[in-house]
Amino acid sequence: MTLPVDPAENLAALIRCPSVTPAEGGALGVLENMLKPMGFSIERPVFSEAGTPDIENLYARRSGNGPHLMFAGHTDVVPPGDEALWKHPPFSAAIEDGIMYGRGAVDMKGGIACFVAAVARHLEKHGSLAGSISFLITGDEEGPAINGTVKLLEWAKQRGESWDASIVGEPTNPTTLGEMIKIGRRGSLSGTITVHGIQGHVAYPQRADNPVRGMMCLLESLLDPAFDHGTENFQASNLEVTTIDVGNRATNVIPARATAGFNIRFNDTWTAESLKAEICARLERAAQANRLRPGRDTAIQYDLVWNERPSHVFLTRDDRLIGTLTRSIEAVTGRRPELSTSGGTSDARFIKDYCPVVEFGLAGQTMHMVDERVPLAELEDLTQIYERFIADFLA
Amino acid sequence: MTLPVDPAENLAALIRCPSVTPAEGGALGVLENMLKPMGFSIERPVFSEAGTPDIENLYARRSGNGPHLMFAGHTDVVPPGDEALWKHPPFSAAIEDGIMYGRGAVDMKGGIACFVAAVARHLEKHGSLAGSISFLITGDEEGPAINGTVKLLEWAKQRGESWDASIVGEPTNPTTLGEMIKIGRRGSLSGTITVHGIQGHVAYPQRADNPVRGMMCLLESLLDPAFDHGTENFQASNLEVTTIDVGNRATNVIPARATAGFNIRFNDTWTAESLKAEICARLERAAQANRLRPGRDTAIQYDLVWNERPSHVFLTRDDRLIGTLTRSIEAVTGRRPELSTSGGTSDARFIKDYCPVVEFGLAGQTMHMVDERVPLAELEDLTQIYERFIADFLA
Repeated sequence: MTLPVDPAENLAALIRCPSVTPAEGGALGVLENMLKPMGFSIERPVFSEAGTPDIENLYARRSGNGPHLMFAGHTDVVPPGDEALWKHPPFSAAIEDGIMYGRGAVDMKGGIACFVAAVARHLEKHGSLAGSISFLITGDEEGPAINGTVKLLEWAKQRGESWDASIVGEPTNPTTLGEMIKIGRRGSLSGTITVHGIQGHVAYPQRADNPVRGMMCLLESLLDPAFDHGTENFQASNLEVTTIDVGNRATNVIPARATAGFNIRFNDTWTAESLKAEICARLERAAQANRLRPGRDTAIQYDLVWNERPSHVFLTRDDRLIGTLTRSIEAVTGRRPELSTSGGTSDARFIKDYCPVVEFGLAGQTMHMVDERVPLAELEDLTQIYERFIADFLA
Repeated sequence: MTLPVDPAENLAALIRCPSVTPAEGGALGVLENMLKPMGFSIERPVFSEAGTPDIENLYARRSGNGPHLMFAGHTDVVPPGDEALWKHPPFSAAIEDGIMYGRGAVDMKGGIACFVAAVARHLEKHGSLAGSISFLITGDEEGPAINGTVKLLEWAKQRGESWDASIVGEPTNPTTLGEMIKIGRRGSLSGTITVHGIQGHVAYPQRADNPVRGMMCLLESLLDPAFDHGTENFQASNLEVTTIDVGNRATNVIPARATAGFNIRFNDTWTAESLKAEICARLERAAQANRLRPGRDTAIQYDLVWNERPSHVFLTRDDRLIGTLTRSIEAVTGRRPELSTSGGTSDARFIKDYCPVVEFGLAGQTMHMVDERVPLAELEDLTQIYERFIADFLA
C-alpha cells in the first residue's frame, strides 16, 4: 500500500474539499483515508451547542513507546470571496509555475498535508514510531471556535488522552519558511461601548446632549496613554477602535446614541481581568471628567459590554520542544527562526492548558487573500522539517 | 357653513395625516378643505428636480383692499422614530389632561391650525378682511428644501404676487408662549468627511491604517477652539457632529473607511464662504499634523463634501411688523417677547428676499422629540394673538 508521502498530492486532495466553516466539505474524510493505512485509529466526534452550527472534528492516534506528540490544526477555511477575482478556481488546487493555488493552501491545509507526509516518510523508513503521534483536527477554527478545539481537547482528556507536547501547523512565517516559530500569543479582548445622549435639533444644542462628543472623550481615554510598552517576550499591547456607528442621516438632528467597538491585543503585563478593570477605570474617569466641561454638569452616560470570551495571553517555556524544532528548521532551511509571540490568536491558546505548545507552518503572506497559494518547494521543505522534528522529538 | 374656528380641531385633522417629508400624507388636502369655505382661491403646485422627490405645495389667497400679509409654513414633519417609545401613537392626535400629542403638534401643524382659526374668527366677526392674506405652505421644509418654499415663492412672483410682510408660524418660544419672536436667523452649513485608511487584521496594526483614529483627529479640529463668541444680534456659532459611521462588524478587522457628518449654525461673523474656508483650513492642518504622530509619517487621507446649499445668515428690521406682533403678544400673554436670532434655520431665510419676515409660533420644547405635544390652552392663546395681529396689521 502506498503511503501519503507527497505533500502536494495530500494538499491538492484537501483543497478540492470546499470546507468553508462550518462545512466539513469532505476534508476530514480525505484526511481519514490518508491516516488509516498508516495505522492510526480514528474518531470523528461531532459537537453541538445551541445557537451555533454542529461541527465535525477528527482525532487520530498511532501509539508507540515514548513521548506523545500532538499535531493540531484545522481543515476549515475562510470563504473565497468573489471567485471571479481568483486566477484559478479556489477549490481546484491548480498548479502553475511550481505554485499550488487554492483556499487553505497556507492556512492551513498545507501544514496538515506536510505533517501527514512527514509521518508517512518516517513510517516508510523506520516501519514504526518511537513514541505516539496524534492529530487533533477541527473544522471550527475560522468560525466561532465553540464546537472545535476546546471541546475536542476536553473530549480526548475524558478518554484518558494526555500529551507531552503539541505543534500547531498554522502559517507562522511572515514571508519565508524558517523565519519564525510562535512560542506564545497575546491575549485578545473585545468590547462594545454605547453612549446615551439626548436627541434634539442641531440648532438647540443646549437642549440635547450629543453622544458623539461623549464617545470621542471615552475613546480618547482608551487610545492614550499606551497600556504598556511591551515586555521581554511580547510586543506592546495595542487597542484598535474597530467601528463607530450612529446611523443618523438627518443633518439637522443631534442623535440619541452612538456605539463603538474595540479590540485590544494584550501582553503578559495584563490578565484579561486586570485589563478589563483598567479599561473600566479609564472609561469611568473620562465619563466623570465630562462634568468639568463648559455647559455640562453630568457624567457621560454609557454602557460597556464585553464581546465573547477573551483569549488569554500565554508563553510556552519548554527548551526541548523549542530547541528540537529550531534545530530541525535550521538543518533544512539554514535559517535560525525568531521565537515570537506576535500576531493574532490561534487554537494554541486552548492547547496550552494541556501541554507545552508551539506553532510552526508555512509562510503566511497570502492567507485569507484572493489567490492564496504555496510553492511546491516550500511544501517539500516543511515536510522535511516536520520529519526531522518527529524523529528527534520522539527519539 | 361652519368655519374652522377651533385650532384644536384643525390641528387634530392635520396630525392625523402622516406627512413625513416628502409625503404629502393628505395634510395639504385637509388644509385646502379648511380654507375653501373662507373664500380662499387655492393652488397646489408640484415641484420636481432630478435626484430629489417631487413635492406638493399649497398657495392660497383671499384678497382685500390693504396690505398683503403672507402666512408661511410647512405641513411636512420629521419621522416619529420608534413609535413604541411614544405615549400615544404619533399620528393619532390623542388628547390627555388637556394636552394634544402628535408629530407636528408644535413643528408646525399647530401654528397653521391656529392661523387658520384666527382668520376664520376674523371672518366670522367682520365678514371680510381689510387687506389680503395668503398661505404659502410647503411639504419640503424638513427635507432638502429644494422643491418647497424657494420654488413656491418664485412661482408666485411669476404670477404677479407680492407681499408687504410675512409671518412664519414656526415654534419660536423656548418654553412659554410669548417669550420670543425671531427676527433673523443664523446660517447653516453641513458637510460629510470620509477618512480613507488601510484595512487589515487587528493583530497586525503596523500593516493597516485605522481611519477611526484619523477621523477623531479631524473632528477634534472642528470642535475646538470655538469658531467665535457671538455678535450683537446673534449667538455664538456652533458645530455638531451629527453622525459617524464605519459599519464594521468584525472585531478582528481594522476597517478601511470612516465617514462623519457635521452641521454648523453660524452667525454674522461669517459668510458661508468664509466659514467653508475656515473649516477646510482646520481639517488640512489636522491632517498634516498627523505626520508628527509616532509611527505615522503621512497626512490623514480624507475627502470633504458639502451637503446641499448652505443657509445664509439674515436679520429683519421692520418696526411696524415687529411692533404690531409684539403688542398682540403682550395683549394676550402679558409677556414682552425677546427679539431673537437664535435657533435653527427656517424658510424665513428664503422669504427675506421678497418681503420683511418675522417668525412666531408655539413653544418648541418637544419639537422633533418623542411625545411632541401642545396644551390646548396654548393653541387658544396663539389663535388670539394671530387674530389681533391680523386685525391690527391689515387695518
